[in-house]
Amino acid sequence: MSFEWLKKSAQAIDSVVLEAAKARQMQLTKPPGSLGYLEDAAIRLAAMQGTQQPSLERARIVVFAADHGIAEEGVSAFPQAVTGHMIHNFAAGGAAISVLARNLGATLEVVDVGSVADSSAMSGVIVQKAAAGTANFRRGPAMTEQQLAAALQAGRDAVARALRAGAQIFIGGEMGIANTTAATAVACALLDKAPQEIAGPGTGLAPEGVAHKARVVGESLVLHRAAMTSPLEVLRHVGGFEIAALAGAYIACAQAGLPVLVDGFIASTAALAAMRIRPDATAWWFYGHASAEPGYVRLMKALQARPLVDLGLRLGEGSGAAVALPILRLAAALHGQMATFAEAGVAEKSHG
Amino acid sequence: MSFEWLKKSAQAIDSVVLEAAKARQMQLTKPPGSLGYLEDAAIRLAAMQGTQQPSLERARIVVFAADHGIAEEGVSAFPQAVTGHMIHNFAAGGAAISVLARNLGATLEVVDVGSVADSSAMSGVIVQKAAAGTANFRRGPAMTEQQLAAALQAGRDAVARALRAGAQIFIGGEMGIANTTAATAVACALLDKAPQEIAGPGTGLAPEGVAHKARVVGESLVLHRAAMTSPLEVLRHVGGFEIAALAGAYIACAQAGLPVLVDGFIASTAALAAMRIRPDATAWWFYGHASAEPGYVRLMKALQARPLVDLGLRLGEGSGAAVALPILRLAAALHGQMATFAEAGVAEKSHG
Repeated sequence: MSFEWLKKSAQAIDSVVLEAAKARQMQLTKPPGSLGYLEDAAIRLAAMQGTQQPSLERARIVVFAADHGIAEEGVSAFPQAVTGHMIHNFAAGGAAISVLARNLGATLEVVDVGSVADSSAMSGVIVQKAAAGTANFRRGPAMTEQQLAAALQAGRDAVARALRAGAQIFIGGEMGIANTTAATAVACALLDKAPQEIAGPGTGLAPEGVAHKARVVGESLVLHRAAMTSPLEVLRHVGGFEIAALAGAYIACAQAGLPVLVDGFIASTAALAAMRIRPDATAWWFYGHASAEPGYVRLMKALQARPLVDLGLRLGEGSGAAVALPILRLAAALHGQMATFAEAGVAEKSHG
Repeated sequence: MSFEWLKKSAQAIDSVVLEAAKARQMQLTKPPGSLGYLEDAAIRLAAMQGTQQPSLERARIVVFAADHGIAEEGVSAFPQAVTGHMIHNFAAGGAAISVLARNLGATLEVVDVGSVADSSAMSGVIVQKAAAGTANFRRGPAMTEQQLAAALQAGRDAVARALRAGAQIFIGGEMGIANTTAATAVACALLDKAPQEIAGPGTGLAPEGVAHKARVVGESLVLHRAAMTSPLEVLRHVGGFEIAALAGAYIACAQAGLPVLVDGFIASTAALAAMRIRPDATAWWFYGHASAEPGYVRLMKALQARPLVDLGLRLGEGSGAAVALPILRLAAALHGQMATFAEAGVAEKSHG
């Protein structure tokens, strides 16, 4: 396993189709700009897919699950066993993302990229573990170089399967008790910010829990600072397997020309790491749902991005991106199916 | 025609189902509260429909179109003929709301409640005109009492048809050149605010156009102030037929126990008028899309409401509510279909 594949460029967005899509939006029977962000999204989708009838009917959702050695520092409101339970729940169809996938007509894949659970007996789970959980990064690097490469590759492999299944958009989710702590550490290192500016309650910490989490992250950053000389080394020292898998998946999507809908805080941290590895990859990414984690706004600023919706979700699993998918689908439908002024015989001339 | 029917109470929300829905949300396999606003929406929907498996599959969208005498004051960026053109475009399937309805599997109805166009020859349009456009309210009342009653009744009739078609949720849209001017006047009168605090660019006015619009509204409010002694008199003096029809529809929905998804600025102005007529009706209303019109935030405050999404739309037609419909549908699906902790065998105990 190697990191060589990360060096391949992202596909270029078709600028001819992009300009044609902009022109088409001006001809549709509505005041120019009146569909707001849906116009921007549709123009990008048209260019990504090389057609003025873009479609996101075939959506792929992949949830990457993994465990975190840092959980032993008491940074989560939930016990580590929940990761394994939830892998089973995803595959059994009872989790939020399972329900969302079914109702969206999306295919759902669950990848155990490194839980401590024995998920091999769970039907419907792809087991591709980098290891049985990361090491506690308060004491040493979260993972070895080999493990990092394996986790990135797991993301890449998931994208290859999505492409074989004909996916038109990729949503990556994550599950892993304590993974907002790892994401916070990664975001702090990449953005060069103090943990107090980034750390938040995750799925349900009280204020004293958040303060403890920030202290744990702060001490860990001091321990690894000198060694974190690249985005890959940041992921290796304080990341998690599912975070690395997401970063690998986002890069692989951009290399293959597959649009991505990024989820909330953890997924956006993975996107930032991926951008630092392959800056040209960001052209292929949309952002689904805002996160209330304090670090999220800084991530969006660094990614020069804005999310589609903010409905107060703080669940992960890809649920925020899934909830936003219908909006992108409608943007695509409007672009391809609305009448032009000429077709409809509607006056477009302003007297203002 | 009379106003008597407005005196009938809204249906009561089932408080037993409401409490059961709250309890169910706490048992679903997710941290409590982690689905954010989707939890609140699902709890309300469950109580409205009297079931823990709420559904919004059968959605009804009704676009009310009408013309405005105030258009002759040059308050819109578009000529009045566009109202008629767009009625045809709605029915022919080329407008934004037509495309949205098709892609949402919603039934779309177009009601000409008072355009100056001859829409009788347009197939698929229900012609129920209160008059051929309102009078110019800068010079006199926009409509007679009889015309107001007819417009409110047109909304009520549309809801009756929606119920007969088995609709589970009602979306009202509007089309009418110059109708943000009428809505601004109604909002100013109901909120007791100056036009400068409420008026905005509508579908595309430049700043000097907005200032002109605010002046026209201000003069009109002075003219009618003494006569606007009730919400109905506000609608009659400075409203529009489609605004009155929406208000009538929202009240009729609440009386029949049919959930409503309110659109942007104009629809929310109609909702405020409806609330002032029947305060108990608001329990049945959701709000789809924020408006950039300056008055919108004040409307939401008065309605004690918040919209689901803000994607920069400023089109009307019900398009903002339509775009938000999938979110309510997913909220309902999550509520009814997620596994409980007991069903899934997932640990819920926190150690924090």
